[in-house]
Amino acid sequence: MKVIRDAIHGDIVLDEFALRIVDTPEFQRLRRITQLGLAYLAYPSARHTRFEHSLGTFWLAKKIAENNRDTVEGAVAYAALLHDLGHYPFSHTLEALYGSHEENTRRALKEGEIRDVIGERYSLKEFLSLLKHPIVSGDIDADRMDYLVRDAYYTGVAYGLVDLDRLIRNLRYDGEKLIIGQKGIMAAQSLLLARSMMYPTVYQHHVSRIASAMLIKAVELERIREKEVATMDEVDLIARLRGSERDEVRELVKAIDDRRLYKRIVYTNEEFKNVEELKKALEDEFNHLAILDYPPKPKFEEKNAFVEGGQRLSNVSPLVRSLVELKDTHWRWGVYAREDVREEVRQFVMDFLG
Amino acid sequence: MKVIRDAIHGDIVLDEFALRIVDTPEFQRLRRITQLGLAYLAYPSARHTRFEHSLGTFWLAKKIAENNRDTVEGAVAYAALLHDLGHYPFSHTLEALYGSHEENTRRALKEGEIRDVIGERYSLKEFLSLLKHPIVSGDIDADRMDYLVRDAYYTGVAYGLVDLDRLIRNLRYDGEKLIIGQKGIMAAQSLLLARSMMYPTVYQHHVSRIASAMLIKAVELERIREKEVATMDEVDLIARLRGSERDEVRELVKAIDDRRLYKRIVYTNEEFKNVEELKKALEDEFNHLAILDYPPKPKFEEKNAFVEGGQRLSNVSPLVRSLVELKDTHWRWGVYAREDVREEVRQFVMDFLG
Amino acid sequence: MKVIRDAIHGDIVLDEFALRIVDTPEFQRLRRITQLGLAYLAYPSARHTRFEHSLGTFWLAKKIAENNRDTVEGAVAYAALLHDLGHYPFSHTLEALYGSHEENTRRALKEGEIRDVIGERYSLKEFLSLLKHPIVSGDIDADRMDYLVRDAYYTGVAYGLVDLDRLIRNLRYDGEKLIIGQKGIMAAQSLLLARSMMYPTVYQHHVSRIASAMLIKAVELERIREKEVATMDEVDLIARLRGSERDEVRELVKAIDDRRLYKRIVYTNEEFKNVEELKKALEDEFNHLAILDYPPKPKFEEKNAFVEGGQRLSNVSPLVRSLVELKDTHWRWGVYAREDVREEVRQFVMDFLG
Amino acid sequence: MKVIRDAIHGDIVLDEFALRIVDTPEFQRLRRITQLGLAYLAYPSARHTRFEHSLGTFWLAKKIAENNRDTVEGAVAYAALLHDLGHYPFSHTLEALYGSHEENTRRALKEGEIRDVIGERYSLKEFLSLLKHPIVSGDIDADRMDYLVRDAYYTGVAYGLVDLDRLIRNLRYDGEKLIIGQKGIMAAQSLLLARSMMYPTVYQHHVSRIASAMLIKAVELERIREKEVATMDEVDLIARLRGSERDEVRELVKAIDDRRLYKRIVYTNEEFKNVEELKKALEDEFNHLAILDYPPKPKFEEKNAFVEGGQRLSNVSPLVRSLVELKDTHWRWGVYAREDVREEVRQFVMDFLG
Repeated sequence: MKVIRDAIHGDIVLDEFALRIVDTPEFQRLRRITQLGLAYLAYPSARHTRFEHSLGTFWLAKKIAENNRDTVEGAVAYAALLHDLGHYPFSHTLEALYGSHEENTRRALKEGEIRDVIGERYSLKEFLSLLKHPIVSGDIDADRMDYLVRDAYYTGVAYGLVDLDRLIRNLRYDGEKLIIGQKGIMAAQSLLLARSMMYPTVYQHHVSRIASAMLIKAVELERIREKEVATMDEVDLIARLRGSERDEVRELVKAIDDRRLYKRIVYTNEEFKNVEELKKALEDEFNHLAILDYPPKPKFEEKNAFVEGGQRLSNVSPLVRSLVELKDTHWRWGVYAREDVREEVRQFVMDFLG
Repeated sequence: MKVIRDAIHGDIVLDEFALRIVDTPEFQRLRRITQLGLAYLAYPSARHTRFEHSLGTFWLAKKIAENNRDTVEGAVAYAALLHDLGHYPFSHTLEALYGSHEENTRRALKEGEIRDVIGERYSLKEFLSLLKHPIVSGDIDADRMDYLVRDAYYTGVAYGLVDLDRLIRNLRYDGEKLIIGQKGIMAAQSLLLARSMMYPTVYQHHVSRIASAMLIKAVELERIREKEVATMDEVDLIARLRGSERDEVRELVKAIDDRRLYKRIVYTNEEFKNVEELKKALEDEFNHLAILDYPPKPKFEEKNAFVEGGQRLSNVSPLVRSLVELKDTHWRWGVYAREDVREEVRQFVMDFLG
Repeated sequence: MKVIRDAIHGDIVLDEFALRIVDTPEFQRLRRITQLGLAYLAYPSARHTRFEHSLGTFWLAKKIAENNRDTVEGAVAYAALLHDLGHYPFSHTLEALYGSHEENTRRALKEGEIRDVIGERYSLKEFLSLLKHPIVSGDIDADRMDYLVRDAYYTGVAYGLVDLDRLIRNLRYDGEKLIIGQKGIMAAQSLLLARSMMYPTVYQHHVSRIASAMLIKAVELERIREKEVATMDEVDLIARLRGSERDEVRELVKAIDDRRLYKRIVYTNEEFKNVEELKKALEDEFNHLAILDYPPKPKFEEKNAFVEGGQRLSNVSPLVRSLVELKDTHWRWGVYAREDVREEVRQFVMDFLG
Repeated sequence: MKVIRDAIHGDIVLDEFALRIVDTPEFQRLRRITQLGLAYLAYPSARHTRFEHSLGTFWLAKKIAENNRDTVEGAVAYAALLHDLGHYPFSHTLEALYGSHEENTRRALKEGEIRDVIGERYSLKEFLSLLKHPIVSGDIDADRMDYLVRDAYYTGVAYGLVDLDRLIRNLRYDGEKLIIGQKGIMAAQSLLLARSMMYPTVYQHHVSRIASAMLIKAVELERIREKEVATMDEVDLIARLRGSERDEVRELVKAIDDRRLYKRIVYTNEEFKNVEELKKALEDEFNHLAILDYPPKPKFEEKNAFVEGGQRLSNVSPLVRSLVELKDTHWRWGVYAREDVREEVRQFVMDFLG
């Protein structure tokens, strides 16, 4: 048994098996994967990592599991601990190139020391299936409970106060889905509201978006294969880019380091059809000096948040319903360019758009 | 004017000149120098950096200066902003090899973009002298006010609650020294108490001590010159060590990454005379597998904390007096060894100590 | 100048004139008027008073005024300080009998020591008009900013975290209305969301509703005139009820003291037309043992929250728009009865409703 | 089972027996006994009561008991819940007249509904003995843990941050005394430091001292018998004083209500022998217009705080040792007088002291 001090949850107690997981090199790598990627360029203190988020998710999942001993196997907490094992450097940033980290998590669990540790107690198939358990991956899950409160704490943004005690006390698992008790509805609602406010304020902050687009471009130009990036940490990746043979790559990573970020030429919530054409045209004309960033629409499906009595949360909470309806509100796409060519790029885009 | 959100002080407002300083590559490098070095191996969430600490120190110094417009020039806040510019990667860790970062700060101010920015308004000599101003560098200074509260917040340790508002409101600068008003004494005392509790709990935590000793050994073996390390960030340093031609160096940095730390063979507060001899003997016998760590005694001089009326703070606060007397309490020296050779090292040290 | 420590805002600084106001017996009376009336029967720690809320409102109004020196006269802060002077014992509770406290505030300002203090600097007419200033009384005003954060802090409920610094920094007064800057929109939205969650959780908690209905009944039966109650504090009122010649009154106040509250017979959000008839019938049949509580619908008009550019906040924030639409969601009316007659009352009401 | 929201501990869960205790009129009376008496005249927001402090003490005692199931009977938590049942109005204030509340607690447990509830499960003798259990009444006990953190929270003073989780996790009861584990020493030390700073800042604040002396004088002049005051709440007491037949009593209570406090004529830490003579002389000359306040020296015995291994806490913590030695530092005695006679009183005291 080991006690780890966490700024969010106080003392987190690791049982012996959890400690064995944490002690693998694969898990320790998460100490070098920042939770919010390049968001620290907008919120300097957002330097927390997937490591402490994973510990926090474990801790909350364990509490939920303990309140539901009849229906939840203890292994769910270990799945929660490992749910982010496959994150690439800078977390979600590079998923635009390499796909969701979830596939990489599944791959990572099949290799190295972590495979052996898991294998002592669980079959791989059994364990992988737990990654989809509603306590680990749902609308009101341990993952989200931890990251909203944690991200708010570290950024210093005032939108992450969620009554986790009250919420966890009022979650029941019926063998299939998590059900929110009457006295937990307000806390669940505030969790979803917190998410909706963190989304534009932090997760989609334009500074983070621009820096991420620059990093993606650098990695793309460096042609790092998925297989390589899958086990890199942030030191590996940045060192690789700094040492690139390509001038554009070194220039991009230096600009991120120095926070000399590209400027917004386009930044709008109007949908646009010819994304690929414009992207190609910009590349042909400006190479790495102009970047098109057209992210997918945010998902806000609230598909498995149920309330005692059988209704969906959105049925009993008009505020949650409005969140579902309004999910696109803060979505934007953009074109960013290095400061010295902003006028040329602006003209080019205007000509293209006609 | 720019507003930066900080988790400790809320909105920090940068005036135009402060913003120009912050925008230099030299200052941006501080984003990649962690405030507490390897302490994150004991406190996972301690990932904050010298960048946000520097902003916080600026902000507090500015408030103190504004309360003392007759006696304090505004430039003191810019000196506070830059007081840590010369920190090496992992902050204090490598000072055992390269000396205090303060000399490096002075050097750094004479070079690059930052020199030009400073030079627009101040002579170098004038500016360097402000680094010694009691608001920047004293017993009750903006630096300490910021780091105690910040380090407690990020580690999650409960010893950093200091009433900064009350303290700052009651600080007067008489042209020579900072003087604590009657109503600020309790807050000043609590600042020094917080420091005395943070010292053993965080700053001298044995996990941090061991990992630091391992990093120092790796850097020493890699023979990185002071000139090189002076401008490195943590990516540079770790990448360099990972890519070393020496097996021992790669092995040490891998052990830190994997948190496979050396074990304590000796850990005691009894003074020891033959440090150099034992160190040499251990190196000859065990090379990098055993490390002697004999840190200097902590300073707690409380030399310039004065109270309204002319007395020292230690004269009016018996608790502070006892802090001065007890400064050595938590000092320890140690010998650490890789787990597989711990018994050999133990035997060797016992033989040496006779 | 005097500094008062406040749990919400830290040090509140009173200038000499503010201090003279605070030092009047009329203002000191607010120390004995609880902010949330009988809510402490649901949230035991909600014992804060109109006194500290008034200081907090003053402090926030002063900050907003200081950021808008060209358009806001300093006297607004004193109006904020005095905006709740006329509250009856247990704050809003007795307004059902005596009308809004606002009229009583205006009356109180014309009498006693407070009249003389105000009169030294301002004409009464001038001062009374400031009570309607948008900084004191609007949708995003100093009053609401203070009470939401304060009520959350004292009840321990997790819905009151509002970024007041950010909001205040981004409020501009154009001589007619308060305008929220772009960077303050999210903070303003979170203020209104906090209110919408505090409303059902705290302000309309059924325990508080029932106890309030019992107190209103006791005061009604005791036939205390408005003129008398207007200057009473909570000691006066409770002592009066305890010493009543009427058994029913003494019984009601004892039941509140012992927290032996009436039970809910009806509690529904379906509107009901024959309120007065049912009320009369219940009184005739059960005297003080059954109480009908039919509160007015909550107001959520958001009539004067404007955003930079001229739009209403509800136009730019879909969440705020949904709040406006959903204002009735948590409204309920009820019939409460003493435990021993609950069955008789239930039958009676069912017969009445047919 | 019932859940009560507390601002300090979050959700407090009352089991059925605890709930029966809480539901007695005797326990509900604690809602009307403020925790810090007249300290709200210095710290306006200090309006919390013995009721919520008692719930908090119960909750912490229960946690300690659960960690020590082999050695601690569950009833200890109920003793913790009831440890303050006998507090007089304004808590410690009137103990100068009526003796410690502890005797009154023992008496109160023998009467009324509470006697019947206790009697269902425990013999009176057995229960009374639990009031002396180290978990309820020691140097590091649940009572102190709760009140320090709570009093700091409600006053807004920054000296009450104690790591209760860490401390409670490291407390072991050996059947005789509470023993602090190695990892709890720093938390225990910070508890005692917090107490030492709360003492002068809050508990012995001169405003509270003066107002208390005035209230004691009023009660003394009103000649309320111990038997009467023993079951009064604060409404009863203040109403009684306001309705007194004696002008002096009404004048004193009005002065407290209006915060027109007596001024300090003497306020010193020099011991004084002829207390009774001066007191008598002042009474003869000035009646209720001058008051002598000579409190007992504070106790700081640290008599039963033991550390793993058998040592006293003061032996392993030099800071705690210095607290023991310095316990008198903030002790003061005073003479206070109504503002209009301060000069006469000053002259009189000077003549008396020669």
